[in-house]
Amino acid sequence: MSIRFPGSPIARNGGPALLLLCGLVLAPGAQAAPERWVVATDLWGNAEYRTLVIDDRDGNFEGTLGGEPVTARRTGRRLTVTTPDGRYDGTIRGDRITGTADLPDINLASVRARHGFTARRIPPRPAGGARVVDFTPTSWSNAFDPHRAPVLTLWPGDTLRTETLDSGGMDSHGQTRALFGNPQIGPFFIAGAEPGDTLVIRIGRLRLNRDFADSRDEIVGRAMTPGLAVRAAGTGTRVRWRLDRDTGLASPEGGTGALADYAIPVRPMLGGLAVAPGGATPVSTGDSGRFGGNMDFNEVIAGNTVLLPVQQPGALLYLGDGHARQGDGETSQWGLETSLDVELTVDLVKADPGGGGAIQMPLVESPGEIMALGQAGSLDEAVRLATDGLVRWMGRDYGLTLAQSAQLLGVAARYSIVTLAGRNAGIAARIDKSALPRKPGDPAPGPARR
Amino acid sequence: MSIRFPGSPIARNGGPALLLLCGLVLAPGAQAAPERWVVATDLWGNAEYRTLVIDDRDGNFEGTLGGEPVTARRTGRRLTVTTPDGRYDGTIRGDRITGTADLPDINLASVRARHGFTARRIPPRPAGGARVVDFTPTSWSNAFDPHRAPVLTLWPGDTLRTETLDSGGMDSHGQTRALFGNPQIGPFFIAGAEPGDTLVIRIGRLRLNRDFADSRDEIVGRAMTPGLAVRAAGTGTRVRWRLDRDTGLASPEGGTGALADYAIPVRPMLGGLAVAPGGATPVSTGDSGRFGGNMDFNEVIAGNTVLLPVQQPGALLYLGDGHARQGDGETSQWGLETSLDVELTVDLVKADPGGGGAIQMPLVESPGEIMALGQAGSLDEAVRLATDGLVRWMGRDYGLTLAQSAQLLGVAARYSIVTLAGRNAGIAARIDKSALPRKPGDPAPGPARR
Amino acid sequence: MSIRFPGSPIARNGGPALLLLCGLVLAPGAQAAPERWVVATDLWGNAEYRTLVIDDRDGNFEGTLGGEPVTARRTGRRLTVTTPDGRYDGTIRGDRITGTADLPDINLASVRARHGFTARRIPPRPAGGARVVDFTPTSWSNAFDPHRAPVLTLWPGDTLRTETLDSGGMDSHGQTRALFGNPQIGPFFIAGAEPGDTLVIRIGRLRLNRDFADSRDEIVGRAMTPGLAVRAAGTGTRVRWRLDRDTGLASPEGGTGALADYAIPVRPMLGGLAVAPGGATPVSTGDSGRFGGNMDFNEVIAGNTVLLPVQQPGALLYLGDGHARQGDGETSQWGLETSLDVELTVDLVKADPGGGGAIQMPLVESPGEIMALGQAGSLDEAVRLATDGLVRWMGRDYGLTLAQSAQLLGVAARYSIVTLAGRNAGIAARIDKSALPRKPGDPAPGPARR
Amino acid sequence: MSIRFPGSPIARNGGPALLLLCGLVLAPGAQAAPERWVVATDLWGNAEYRTLVIDDRDGNFEGTLGGEPVTARRTGRRLTVTTPDGRYDGTIRGDRITGTADLPDINLASVRARHGFTARRIPPRPAGGARVVDFTPTSWSNAFDPHRAPVLTLWPGDTLRTETLDSGGMDSHGQTRALFGNPQIGPFFIAGAEPGDTLVIRIGRLRLNRDFADSRDEIVGRAMTPGLAVRAAGTGTRVRWRLDRDTGLASPEGGTGALADYAIPVRPMLGGLAVAPGGATPVSTGDSGRFGGNMDFNEVIAGNTVLLPVQQPGALLYLGDGHARQGDGETSQWGLETSLDVELTVDLVKADPGGGGAIQMPLVESPGEIMALGQAGSLDEAVRLATDGLVRWMGRDYGLTLAQSAQLLGVAARYSIVTLAGRNAGIAARIDKSALPRKPGDPAPGPARR
Repeated sequence: MSIRFPGSPIARNGGPALLLLCGLVLAPGAQAAPERWVVATDLWGNAEYRTLVIDDRDGNFEGTLGGEPVTARRTGRRLTVTTPDGRYDGTIRGDRITGTADLPDINLASVRARHGFTARRIPPRPAGGARVVDFTPTSWSNAFDPHRAPVLTLWPGDTLRTETLDSGGMDSHGQTRALFGNPQIGPFFIAGAEPGDTLVIRIGRLRLNRDFADSRDEIVGRAMTPGLAVRAAGTGTRVRWRLDRDTGLASPEGGTGALADYAIPVRPMLGGLAVAPGGATPVSTGDSGRFGGNMDFNEVIAGNTVLLPVQQPGALLYLGDGHARQGDGETSQWGLETSLDVELTVDLVKADPGGGGAIQMPLVESPGEIMALGQAGSLDEAVRLATDGLVRWMGRDYGLTLAQSAQLLGVAARYSIVTLAGRNAGIAARIDKSALPRKPGDPAPGPARR
Repeated sequence: MSIRFPGSPIARNGGPALLLLCGLVLAPGAQAAPERWVVATDLWGNAEYRTLVIDDRDGNFEGTLGGEPVTARRTGRRLTVTTPDGRYDGTIRGDRITGTADLPDINLASVRARHGFTARRIPPRPAGGARVVDFTPTSWSNAFDPHRAPVLTLWPGDTLRTETLDSGGMDSHGQTRALFGNPQIGPFFIAGAEPGDTLVIRIGRLRLNRDFADSRDEIVGRAMTPGLAVRAAGTGTRVRWRLDRDTGLASPEGGTGALADYAIPVRPMLGGLAVAPGGATPVSTGDSGRFGGNMDFNEVIAGNTVLLPVQQPGALLYLGDGHARQGDGETSQWGLETSLDVELTVDLVKADPGGGGAIQMPLVESPGEIMALGQAGSLDEAVRLATDGLVRWMGRDYGLTLAQSAQLLGVAARYSIVTLAGRNAGIAARIDKSALPRKPGDPAPGPARR
Repeated sequence: MSIRFPGSPIARNGGPALLLLCGLVLAPGAQAAPERWVVATDLWGNAEYRTLVIDDRDGNFEGTLGGEPVTARRTGRRLTVTTPDGRYDGTIRGDRITGTADLPDINLASVRARHGFTARRIPPRPAGGARVVDFTPTSWSNAFDPHRAPVLTLWPGDTLRTETLDSGGMDSHGQTRALFGNPQIGPFFIAGAEPGDTLVIRIGRLRLNRDFADSRDEIVGRAMTPGLAVRAAGTGTRVRWRLDRDTGLASPEGGTGALADYAIPVRPMLGGLAVAPGGATPVSTGDSGRFGGNMDFNEVIAGNTVLLPVQQPGALLYLGDGHARQGDGETSQWGLETSLDVELTVDLVKADPGGGGAIQMPLVESPGEIMALGQAGSLDEAVRLATDGLVRWMGRDYGLTLAQSAQLLGVAARYSIVTLAGRNAGIAARIDKSALPRKPGDPAPGPARR
Repeated sequence: MSIRFPGSPIARNGGPALLLLCGLVLAPGAQAAPERWVVATDLWGNAEYRTLVIDDRDGNFEGTLGGEPVTARRTGRRLTVTTPDGRYDGTIRGDRITGTADLPDINLASVRARHGFTARRIPPRPAGGARVVDFTPTSWSNAFDPHRAPVLTLWPGDTLRTETLDSGGMDSHGQTRALFGNPQIGPFFIAGAEPGDTLVIRIGRLRLNRDFADSRDEIVGRAMTPGLAVRAAGTGTRVRWRLDRDTGLASPEGGTGALADYAIPVRPMLGGLAVAPGGATPVSTGDSGRFGGNMDFNEVIAGNTVLLPVQQPGALLYLGDGHARQGDGETSQWGLETSLDVELTVDLVKADPGGGGAIQMPLVESPGEIMALGQAGSLDEAVRLATDGLVRWMGRDYGLTLAQSAQLLGVAARYSIVTLAGRNAGIAARIDKSALPRKPGDPAPGPARR
């Protein structure tokens, strides 16, 4: 059998379980803010995460679990949550709950099964509004992993300042701090993010913090004709580039002949940016998908904004794999791989109540363009996904019917290749904002209007 | 940066580490069989596995770690293993070792780093030769996971008798025992298997053990033109099939019209069969690769033999996802998903000393054919891989030059589509044995010879 | 601008022209069979062909031109045909008409344009029913050309016996008779065939008529990984095969090593079989499309039936490029290229009045299977077309809904690669008749029925 | 059998024929310029074209035919040309020769065959150097046809001023002048152009000459996911756009809602630009290939230069299918189709004596970029061709080794999609000149140099 959609298998069959919470600590009438917990239910060895929100509504403890209504009771440390077809019983110890869920069998509705669960309390937002948070990583992940414990909780509007290793695990001093293969920092838990929401990542700054990068003199297989493959025999070795942080120029070390004095301006970008994928299985940091990942898109630069579809509670943001510069397609398998100082601001667009606003893939917005990323096993499939994503965006934000979007794409679509170097190929479907009508509610006419 | 080869990052940079084992328990001169351990070195949070073999050669404790020569000393419980550029110091407690490895920095040879390690002793082969082992699973994995503890150790020649759940986690009684998504049994540790070897799996029997299967009335997106997609709107629902174990026929439940009396013979197959992938990241049981995985190949049937390239010590065999029958391509997204009684025999083909005999992808041999499986993001890429694999096989086992293989493919190649339903598409490049020359050393001429 | 559908540009804009035929030679009341002409209208240098049928219905000369109703008058040699928006005036000289058509401008309806036209009379069917016709070709075509004059007229049911050159233009004596590149014999005008109809070609016999064939020791680029390309450097030379017509075995000349005594049974097939493509441009005999063409399908063998969608009046059947044998994919660029004696029978399935029964691509039926051929620029696109074609066939002839077809494909689809060697890749979507329900009206139950 | 390379079949087998010209009209010692003829040899119904050059070298009449050395004699009107393995005998009548060629059989060297031939004299270059030629077309071609008689002879350096119809055959007055489907003007015979040379086309001006264009509200199948196909049901109708030649803006007629006041700047381009393809078969003006054709590349604009690989004597330049503007991919199947005033200058780069400088595909140079066009049946294949073409260009003109080119592509490659609308998909591999080293011999350093 083949699996298409990572996601909750339980949810497919109608979804489990209201929770009863007995005897909430919340004093009735105190009108405290709702409590929020991330509940990890053990489904035969696989943790499934959902957010539990419990609210004291005039003495009725009600709430939601994974968006579905539940009722709750609390007696001392005992908590019972009742869902439409199940029940969670647990014991609260500080910011943790441990207990057992009683849920119907997915296939045989008459049979019930017991599953262990744990929960972790989501802390309340610190007073004082959006913060700037400096974070010095001490561990890195080689997977986009839904199970990895968050290193930090951020709230919408917060700005994160941190630094990334290069793809080989080297830091700004050239020392190995993590395993080769795009080690990422994170995950950062974005409070309030739920599956279906859109995580907005505004990249404020990407700054070189060392004087060299590593690349290769290679052409990836996906870009090679049989004839070119024969002529390219013998290439594929590492090439170190010098980065001049004063002039902003990069040069291959030991360049000879036509490259004796070669230099080209840097344009730092993040190769890796992801939310945790849905489902139970971590994904290699060399891979990509609708969760983002190792997109290797040379438009993930300072000044641009990346939108990712949240797939797990808290989104679980990962980032890494900075490049001092990279051409379209990352045809040399490695960009100019280097460590970076990073500054970015996170925000959330909540899903419509019906889930209608959910985005299907990574989107990138620059001052002048909107771009949808198709990532698939071939360019021919990637271009379909990218076009679909851009058409949805044009409809959602610019009020265009599909027939109208088709007309504008006909005169103004842009398509660039994002990557040829990974398991997925990537294509960006793009359109200049000057070729789009004014957004509904946006007063300023674009430059191409009459 | 994009990663191509799962594998040891250390090995890329010249390889790590001799081990010093101080004071081996092995009494000098006792000529005991070598001790074998699986060493898990913690590379910044990622376990890397290699086999340690320590032999008492006339009082010299020598051996290999991951195939590289080491020397060892042992004093009481203290073990020291010295490798060409590193050292492992550990404490033995029964069948476990815990300790610390001192290894050079991958990037800065002058810097050294300390990594924790553990080791697990591989038990010696039970006396009496090849066994038939009955195994009743009690847990299932939703990933092809190199880190999951083996459920059993098998030796080359052993036969395993067990049973698999269907892809939804249902057992032969219709009860859910594992999480939806091709849950697998295993891993089975195949003693002696090392990366580069070939795991040989002879499928002795695949027997239906219940009276129904689940499928869908769907055509997967990869098989649909835009026009067919429009006409297919509204399809995609689950269809239960009855399996008549007496007649060996399958029929869709509630078939009407042209399908009112429809029945078709079953042909049980295993959709999932894998060794653990290389590298540190588990792979979803919905995915496939050169390690095998969710191949969904309708030639993985009783009487045929599957060859998989070992990528971790012990191979770590997984299996699951039985189908009562499946067409080429698994175009309905689900075959006739059902639970199965399975009997298979494992064997090993050791790599050449130079690693030359390693296979690159799953191979399948039937009484009449040899078949190489290309699995990639598109059919156009899969066919390249499959052809490459078949040409290598023809060269290795039938003594054909590449130009000769090209001639035979021109007159006798067969290509079938394996799957259209997964992230990877699959193509089998096949050739009848009757169209191949006699294998060197094989006395009997094939039927098509003069 | 990009063109998708070869076809009449005029027809797209509503279609031109009733014809008035003034003063038909046909005596009123004589109740003669209708006259049939192929009218070639000169559209700015491009001939467009439509069939004119004129019937004497109780003194009213009525008929159709390209299927649309017209009225006609005839006075001596002068013929006037009036169509809904145009008029053809011509002079009859024996079996030819020459004249001028007055038709509206395609874009500006108010403007009219004059176009020359000619017509050729389709002879009446010879008495005595279906014939066996022996045809010795004296010229060959290197294009599937809608403008080439027919070499012979056949009627449904007629059997043609002829011989084909090999793809290099060599005849059964080894002499060059035509230009390299799959020279074809034909076209054969199939009386009664109109665009939308299905031409049925039953292949009765394909017989070797010489003792050698030419092939190559090559692997086509579409089947090569970059690594295989490097290893294959130096291959790609011509290999002559001996054909033993007594034993039916083929052997590479001068085979050494593993191929020293190699022989394999022949299985003669026609690589080229086509109707003339729609539109005005000939298509190279190296190319393929929905009209058939250089399909290189190893199931176009004696005993099987090929169905092609008629696109020009008279279908204009071409054939050539025999292979003594060929593997799937024609991976060596050439099969075993040879000349052949050919015997085939033609038949017609007329389109539904609404055009509903038209097939979209070549179909092949063997005693045991039905097969639809997807031919496109990639395997990934070809498989979509092939699936669409097979689903249509299952619906049309076996009474299956799309959801039912989806279920049967899920359990019984077969997919093989037809060709990897041309501009188009080809895939056959196939299903055994034993896996299909009984055809409506067909009394005999298939073997797999209960 | 499958054909890969259109080209001379004779040339493959060693090449034919020196010509003997007996009794040349050229008086010995007169030192006249060489005579040049285009010789069309009838190869079983297919004309093959080669240039015959006859020079009076001190009384020896020598020359070349298709680049191979010949000797000639001329007696009165009788001309005999002797080639290494054949002989042409003809009669000169003014600017035409008619005769018979005696050539060896391609397959049986011992057998000889007689082929008719004709020749047409290439006029000498008019005095006065490069000209500006105004040309008003009166006929159009719906094929890129090697057999169509040239409408005009141009010499390197000449500038052509003419006008093109739109793809539907409409002229600047809205009247239909040619058959729908990208009718082209031409062919223009470029004196001196031989297969292997590069035709250089500098586009001086593309000017709108009417006030409307036609497009569609469609998304082509190649850009559609199955889901988008379902949502797009009902689109695909023609949309007329108004072109304001004063402001240079285009607007869809009757735009409502978000498109009520929409306008976008025009950017006129030529969709069709081609040399005649090699081989004997015309190619539809809807198709493309290494000869150019219906490339639909939105960088074929005024100020840019297109390079095409010459494949027939005289190159036989065709052009047509102007668009007022088009997005990447021509996703709406039609750009803004309109008629255009065109001004372009032709030039030639002669092949190296060894043929080494021949380009493999269309190349485009803008003031800031070089671009190679891959055109193939899939994007995945097109990107391979495009990369190969760009790497060759970088090596040939910028002195870069393959390993160096690989490094520069890694940091600076650009890839855009050219077309998704045709049988071929197109991809442009591009690189900014500022990212390239100085060309050998070019004094000015690029902006990115140190």
